[in-house]
Amino acid sequence: MKNVMRISVNRNSKIPVYLQIRNEIRELILSKVLEPGFRLPPERKLALTLGVNRSTVVNAYRELEADGFIESHVGRGTIIKPLSSQENTRTPFPDVQPLVWKDFYNRLSAQMYNPILNSVLEQIVSEEIISFAAGVPAYVSYPAQAFERIFSELMQNDQWHALEYSATAGHYPLREYLSKFMRSRGIQTKPENILILSGSQQGLDLVAKVFLEPGDTVVVEEPTYLGAISVFQAAGARVLSIPMDEEGMRTDMLEQVISHHRPKLIYTLPTFQNPSGISLSPERRHALLQLAYRYHVPILEDDPYGELYYEGEPPLPLKAMDRHDHVLYLSTFSKILFPGLRLGWCVAPSAVIEQLTLAKQLVDLHAGTTAQWVMDRFCRQGLLERHLAQVRKDYAQKRNTMIEALEACAPPGFVWNVPKGGFYLWCQLPVGVTATSLLNKASEKRVAFLPGNACYVGGGGTDRIRLCFSRYTEETIREGIKRICMAMKEIMVKQTGLEGKSGKEQGIKPIV
Amino acid sequence: MKNVMRISVNRNSKIPVYLQIRNEIRELILSKVLEPGFRLPPERKLALTLGVNRSTVVNAYRELEADGFIESHVGRGTIIKPLSSQENTRTPFPDVQPLVWKDFYNRLSAQMYNPILNSVLEQIVSEEIISFAAGVPAYVSYPAQAFERIFSELMQNDQWHALEYSATAGHYPLREYLSKFMRSRGIQTKPENILILSGSQQGLDLVAKVFLEPGDTVVVEEPTYLGAISVFQAAGARVLSIPMDEEGMRTDMLEQVISHHRPKLIYTLPTFQNPSGISLSPERRHALLQLAYRYHVPILEDDPYGELYYEGEPPLPLKAMDRHDHVLYLSTFSKILFPGLRLGWCVAPSAVIEQLTLAKQLVDLHAGTTAQWVMDRFCRQGLLERHLAQVRKDYAQKRNTMIEALEACAPPGFVWNVPKGGFYLWCQLPVGVTATSLLNKASEKRVAFLPGNACYVGGGGTDRIRLCFSRYTEETIREGIKRICMAMKEIMVKQTGLEGKSGKEQGIKPIV
Repeated sequence: MKNVMRISVNRNSKIPVYLQIRNEIRELILSKVLEPGFRLPPERKLALTLGVNRSTVVNAYRELEADGFIESHVGRGTIIKPLSSQENTRTPFPDVQPLVWKDFYNRLSAQMYNPILNSVLEQIVSEEIISFAAGVPAYVSYPAQAFERIFSELMQNDQWHALEYSATAGHYPLREYLSKFMRSRGIQTKPENILILSGSQQGLDLVAKVFLEPGDTVVVEEPTYLGAISVFQAAGARVLSIPMDEEGMRTDMLEQVISHHRPKLIYTLPTFQNPSGISLSPERRHALLQLAYRYHVPILEDDPYGELYYEGEPPLPLKAMDRHDHVLYLSTFSKILFPGLRLGWCVAPSAVIEQLTLAKQLVDLHAGTTAQWVMDRFCRQGLLERHLAQVRKDYAQKRNTMIEALEACAPPGFVWNVPKGGFYLWCQLPVGVTATSLLNKASEKRVAFLPGNACYVGGGGTDRIRLCFSRYTEETIREGIKRICMAMKEIMVKQTGLEGKSGKEQGIKPIV
Repeated sequence: MKNVMRISVNRNSKIPVYLQIRNEIRELILSKVLEPGFRLPPERKLALTLGVNRSTVVNAYRELEADGFIESHVGRGTIIKPLSSQENTRTPFPDVQPLVWKDFYNRLSAQMYNPILNSVLEQIVSEEIISFAAGVPAYVSYPAQAFERIFSELMQNDQWHALEYSATAGHYPLREYLSKFMRSRGIQTKPENILILSGSQQGLDLVAKVFLEPGDTVVVEEPTYLGAISVFQAAGARVLSIPMDEEGMRTDMLEQVISHHRPKLIYTLPTFQNPSGISLSPERRHALLQLAYRYHVPILEDDPYGELYYEGEPPLPLKAMDRHDHVLYLSTFSKILFPGLRLGWCVAPSAVIEQLTLAKQLVDLHAGTTAQWVMDRFCRQGLLERHLAQVRKDYAQKRNTMIEALEACAPPGFVWNVPKGGFYLWCQLPVGVTATSLLNKASEKRVAFLPGNACYVGGGGTDRIRLCFSRYTEETIREGIKRICMAMKEIMVKQTGLEGKSGKEQGIKPIV
């Protein structure tokens, strides 16, 4: 008999009876046994038929109405709606409002927007553009064959553990190697005080995750690493910056800021700083430590570039001078070997390593096991030391090449530093040329750099740019610099009608 | 002339004059030109000699006193202290209080403690113990040689990009492959809707980072994945759990919880659930989606095991049934290929992918480039599909082997489920045997498992254990099960004097 509702309820089921009724009617509608326009029995009548309370049927009908299957009309009863106003057969829920996702994000999510960091990473994979923006090593001259050999050896010797899950704190032999390696930087430490990170960016994030509450203050140098500013701000911290001069962070201005704002952390890149290339003088290192001791403020020392020195040994890290365990130290393989492996490390007091390990376990369980095993074997075969000796020569040469190229074609008013290590020339633009206008003009010429304002917390740096000299061949460096200088000159001509003289009359001076 | 202070100040230096004075005196003390007991000139006199204000000298002496070098005695003047009360020569700051690091951690750090997750990861690298605790694939039968070959090919063809930094959202070809792969699970998506993760654990963390505020509510199944509970709790969320029965989450109980607590997220493992092995029935999947639509609650679907089915195809993922973009979907290579590579992925609406990408950029820049390139090539050569076909057979066999071993030796009252896919037997212990007591006894016999209570939010599960059957050879599975059963029997004998009968009379029933 068509159009008769045959439904039944099972009182032993865990599914509530009203939902059983709803489900059965829905199935009858979806399978077209009940057709649009069909009038459902009145609630009271169906309740009697099924031997349930009237309210049970009321609830079932309410569900069906909410799902868009039926509608009630006073006088006409409850009618199955036309198919066109029902949703598709799989998820019959016609009036679903789309989620406005951003309404679901927490307050700090808005702080995560960092378009410059994003574009820097994306440019790396582009072969269309000469990008001096990212701080990246010169892969082409890198020991990829040695990596390949070591990986093959691991696989051929059935080293399954190299492919497995592993301990959060890191592959123990690598922690052991790094504790010895740290001695060459003057840092006395043990494997237990080393946490292997998925890149040193993760170290910044874990420290923020463990230490910072929204509203806390973090002190940084200005300018500083753009990725650090974003991490601290995304943790809800207020980031206060201390100016630098040619000896690094103005520690003479630091005490007032500390005593006033009681920061949770002081973040510093004391050696071949990013972006300025400047190293904090030994005198200031001492002063910085003393302020940390006096005011009980932990220091987060970020040292990605310490091995990349081109004019004599670099100064001792703060961690090496620290006798009272106030310094948390970050470093990374990303600037000296392959960043694609994502390996960095943290040196810290045991209590901090333990807490950071707990935090790391929740964020990604552990750094790549395979990467750690290969890196450990690579280092233990003495290949890291050999490689460092080579790149120190190469990068010094590249730095000089970039400077020569600038001397040959930079317009008047363009000034750069001469860093003793690291990856970057930090440059001041001629009056009237802003980093943003230059970036636009440069992108027409398929060349890129890091605009200085990315390195400032609260405005500033619009007349600065950072050029990474480590990545390309000398030929490409010359070509890229030529393009940037052309872009600058075009902006200047447009503004003044004058191209300005270029070349040797340009000064080289330390700038920050 | 001994014991005469020769110091000078430089008015052009950026170092304040009082600090110059302090520094020079400090150097004279450290180099032992000035010895303990030496009386410094009165402040006024030194000020006159140097041509500075008296307050400048007062400030310098105050610094030296704070640093522990000198002390003032009324009547005797200012004296250099004995060496024994000075700090070492490198950081002369004798009365530094050690930092009590935990006082510096934020409120949520205390939520990160998860000793079970930690010990599970550490046991993996131990060869001393048969550990059924971690959910890990059977590496030994894995295609390591194919990985090695692909890596070698990359290196020999100078694929430098495989070692470089790369875009945060992931290696585009891998995103493209995964978008096609997702179709085999019924999910229609585009590469742009896929974010490559450093393991799917990171997906949980990023979702928490973007969505959750302290005080928000997250709904989960009970029992559920222990690493998820910790992530949500560490984000300050209140985690509410919904019981399961043999059809999965009790969606009939869900509506009341949703309407009462308005959760920010519903977290579910609908397919071959961890730890219960149960799959949410198609009916319940439908009901869950409708509740999400009606109450505007996003669903976070975690699907690590969907490919590992042993008795016919698994149910459609929620993401495949979702017509209104309410589902965020996580999956991973860690259960089907090598977890040591740390690669997972998220499928989500564009707006969410964009925000998660911003968050990921700050936490680790990007997943391992090398791992992504190798994985992409591996998959594109059809090796993933071939491998999956093989492990489905292997793991079904291992599951059966573990069940046979239990049938042969489990004591009365030990009951297990028979999952249709995934990695785990979820077991109920005999009355009087707790997971903790068994864990201790088992560790004497060098065998381990996951105690059930780790999978519960607010107590419970003390009579449950989870056994992973995927990892070991059949021989080792039998040996491990024998040890666990012996451990149980020893506990039972001690309690009752009776060992109980073992073997076939034990029932197998679905339990949760």
